[in-house]
Amino acid sequence: MNPVTQLVIANRILAHEEVVDAYGHVSVRTEAGFLLSHSKAPSSVGAEDILEFDLSAQPKTQERRPLYLERFIHAAIYEARPDVMAVVHAHAEDVLPFTIADVALRPVIHSGAFIGAEVPLWDIAATFGERTDLLVRNMDQARDLAKSLGRNNVALMRGHGFAAAARSLIDVVRMSVYLPRNARAQRRAMQMGKLKPLSRGEIEARTSGYKPDSPETQRAWRYWAERAGCAHLLKP
Amino acid sequence: MNPVTQLVIANRILAHEEVVDAYGHVSVRTEAGFLLSHSKAPSSVGAEDILEFDLSAQPKTQERRPLYLERFIHAAIYEARPDVMAVVHAHAEDVLPFTIADVALRPVIHSGAFIGAEVPLWDIAATFGERTDLLVRNMDQARDLAKSLGRNNVALMRGHGFAAAARSLIDVVRMSVYLPRNARAQRRAMQMGKLKPLSRGEIEARTSGYKPDSPETQRAWRYWAERAGCAHLLKP
Amino acid sequence: MNPVTQLVIANRILAHEEVVDAYGHVSVRTEAGFLLSHSKAPSSVGAEDILEFDLSAQPKTQERRPLYLERFIHAAIYEARPDVMAVVHAHAEDVLPFTIADVALRPVIHSGAFIGAEVPLWDIAATFGERTDLLVRNMDQARDLAKSLGRNNVALMRGHGFAAAARSLIDVVRMSVYLPRNARAQRRAMQMGKLKPLSRGEIEARTSGYKPDSPETQRAWRYWAERAGCAHLLKP
Amino acid sequence: MNPVTQLVIANRILAHEEVVDAYGHVSVRTEAGFLLSHSKAPSSVGAEDILEFDLSAQPKTQERRPLYLERFIHAAIYEARPDVMAVVHAHAEDVLPFTIADVALRPVIHSGAFIGAEVPLWDIAATFGERTDLLVRNMDQARDLAKSLGRNNVALMRGHGFAAAARSLIDVVRMSVYLPRNARAQRRAMQMGKLKPLSRGEIEARTSGYKPDSPETQRAWRYWAERAGCAHLLKP
Repeated sequence: MNPVTQLVIANRILAHEEVVDAYGHVSVRTEAGFLLSHSKAPSSVGAEDILEFDLSAQPKTQERRPLYLERFIHAAIYEARPDVMAVVHAHAEDVLPFTIADVALRPVIHSGAFIGAEVPLWDIAATFGERTDLLVRNMDQARDLAKSLGRNNVALMRGHGFAAAARSLIDVVRMSVYLPRNARAQRRAMQMGKLKPLSRGEIEARTSGYKPDSPETQRAWRYWAERAGCAHLLKP
Repeated sequence: MNPVTQLVIANRILAHEEVVDAYGHVSVRTEAGFLLSHSKAPSSVGAEDILEFDLSAQPKTQERRPLYLERFIHAAIYEARPDVMAVVHAHAEDVLPFTIADVALRPVIHSGAFIGAEVPLWDIAATFGERTDLLVRNMDQARDLAKSLGRNNVALMRGHGFAAAARSLIDVVRMSVYLPRNARAQRRAMQMGKLKPLSRGEIEARTSGYKPDSPETQRAWRYWAERAGCAHLLKP
Repeated sequence: MNPVTQLVIANRILAHEEVVDAYGHVSVRTEAGFLLSHSKAPSSVGAEDILEFDLSAQPKTQERRPLYLERFIHAAIYEARPDVMAVVHAHAEDVLPFTIADVALRPVIHSGAFIGAEVPLWDIAATFGERTDLLVRNMDQARDLAKSLGRNNVALMRGHGFAAAARSLIDVVRMSVYLPRNARAQRRAMQMGKLKPLSRGEIEARTSGYKPDSPETQRAWRYWAERAGCAHLLKP
Repeated sequence: MNPVTQLVIANRILAHEEVVDAYGHVSVRTEAGFLLSHSKAPSSVGAEDILEFDLSAQPKTQERRPLYLERFIHAAIYEARPDVMAVVHAHAEDVLPFTIADVALRPVIHSGAFIGAEVPLWDIAATFGERTDLLVRNMDQARDLAKSLGRNNVALMRGHGFAAAARSLIDVVRMSVYLPRNARAQRRAMQMGKLKPLSRGEIEARTSGYKPDSPETQRAWRYWAERAGCAHLLKP
């Protein structure tokens, strides 16, 4: 399927599922860079808004429309991780408490397994000091974030949000939708008693068994697209 | 009323009330098996999607469309429990904390009485080890879950969701809608003080007095169908 | 304004603001009894559904449609409290934790002042034992609840919900809408630190200054009616 | 852009984002006073509802429609703070717990930085005693609130809500939308562990770098207007 259309659907799904609001963005890798919208709320992104960027986060063709300030996040993750085909950066509200409390986010529900056994917390102040505006405004900052992400699937960003990286666009959308749900389940369980997270074996079994073109995943993709009002963009 | 139409309404209600999302399913017993949709999000299930399965979870007629991976849950519960006429499996979010914290879910509100005095927690790892993907993928796993369910109405599934079983389709839908509400009330009460659950006598009085064709239950069924936009499928 | 139309609006508002779902009801006093719908979800109640009941909760004209099981709540409160002109019984979810935890609900926000300084908790088991289904099914039970309510505006009902009584229909709707909000504010404040409720003087100042026909209250009534899709029923 | 149209958009956004309900209001400064609606729910405010007030909160032209009781809040803040161009007063629900618990609200997420390092809590009872109805009904009370606000951007009002003041209408709307989100993040983080708020340097970096006409802010303004159904009022 046309990657531009897929990316439009991804934008709409993330907006409708409240992973992003006016802020947050999703990209997909191309041969020499990545596709990403210009500076626009994901709920309104259409095919005409999608641009191609190179791995230093510069648009490949001249562009007069404003660009996302934090597009460097995408560039640095693609640069560091040849296995990654799609990236989301967002501020989903239920993830935020885990970025400001001294407690580790863990996969605790089966649909949250894809965040992986470790979810590092990147604090921009550790390298860039206490006077940033918390935004990832250049390749230096983005590479520091990518380094913190390492081989993991998700990095939390202190007081800000998260970056998620996956093998496909559908993977990264799915992970981003279930990440806040996993966060809520963990927080609520911790209010009541001792928490039992998924075991390492379970995380591996789920991750290794996951295929973006399986009927189960396609079912979710279609479901989310229908909710977001863009099912007409799906291939027939 | 036509059981296929009833099952379509049940699918739509469970979707609209957020008991299920792209995942989760509901079935109703037939003479020699049960009715269940093929692999489709419950919000979109129509009469043409409903198939009949036998008690080993195989479709009774040749079927090329993909099937729910976890349809075995339904088969094993019908096999073990001749009194059960309808089954729901779902991942309703507010139930999840009780599947991963060391605290027992209890009926605490009158509309939650139907979950019964005991709600066992089934951990797939207890029998099948720490390397499953948590899904119930065959009759062995499903029978283990059914054994854990025993004579109860609901079994929680660790890090995954729940299975609910009842005497009628309306019963199981009602129980599934009020189960998350009961879970929220219990969690919130526990945050504030000592919890007073329903007494055994109250649970029995409510359960024994419950009739799916009572005006009170029909009122809820119609109300949910109206909210779900499928009231036109109700019998006049 | 026509009291039947007003009561229809009240039903729709309480449904849309999620004070009631398929269950819960609202009534308004007449010269010799009170107006209340037959057994119907409040979201669908129209003028043709409103019946007049006497103070023993019997319909004043022959009626073949089923009646609310718990209509006795209204009768007993009108009987005990000549000052009360309108009654709500509901199961609003955020009130439930206060009915099952050993913590007193207090007015903590200015819009919650109307619940009054004391909110008694009625436990049906105290008088009627541990084998009821928690429903108020006759005048005896309802009178016991009314006795617990006393001179207060709201009585909580253990594991079940609440009954609210006020000087006018608009008062009781307003109180029922803000009661869950007050409950949420109290619960959340208690999670973080020591709670400062309203003082007795503040509660009295708000209650004594309140007029259902003030521009402020009419503004809320119109706002809720617009949200509920029934603003066309308001007087021009 | 026409300040009346801008203020209509602000009203609609604050209503749709649930910062205000039937109550709460937003104003913008004029040369000799400020613009504010007459007593109307912000969700319904149109250009014909906007009046100009002087700095004693009296309408500049004769007006027969009822006025907001608490319009004095706006007047007193404009009087005390020449730098302030727009004011919001609201009861947003997730802010309320911080007005009744003995815990300080802090900026903890980057979008919450604009509330500033200190968020004072004004208790009307401190100056006006324990028998007020908590409303700010005259200039004396409003000046006391403005004094508590001081040079800060937000003052909490005990058991009531908040007042927010900013350099532009877009600033104050943005701050009012993210204030409840910041409050939720802080409350939820505190439930799980030790809280790490933004540093003073980060708060200053964000505040000083903020421009209401930046593409990022205009993106949010458009996004909120689209959600509120009033994007047609935006300048082309």
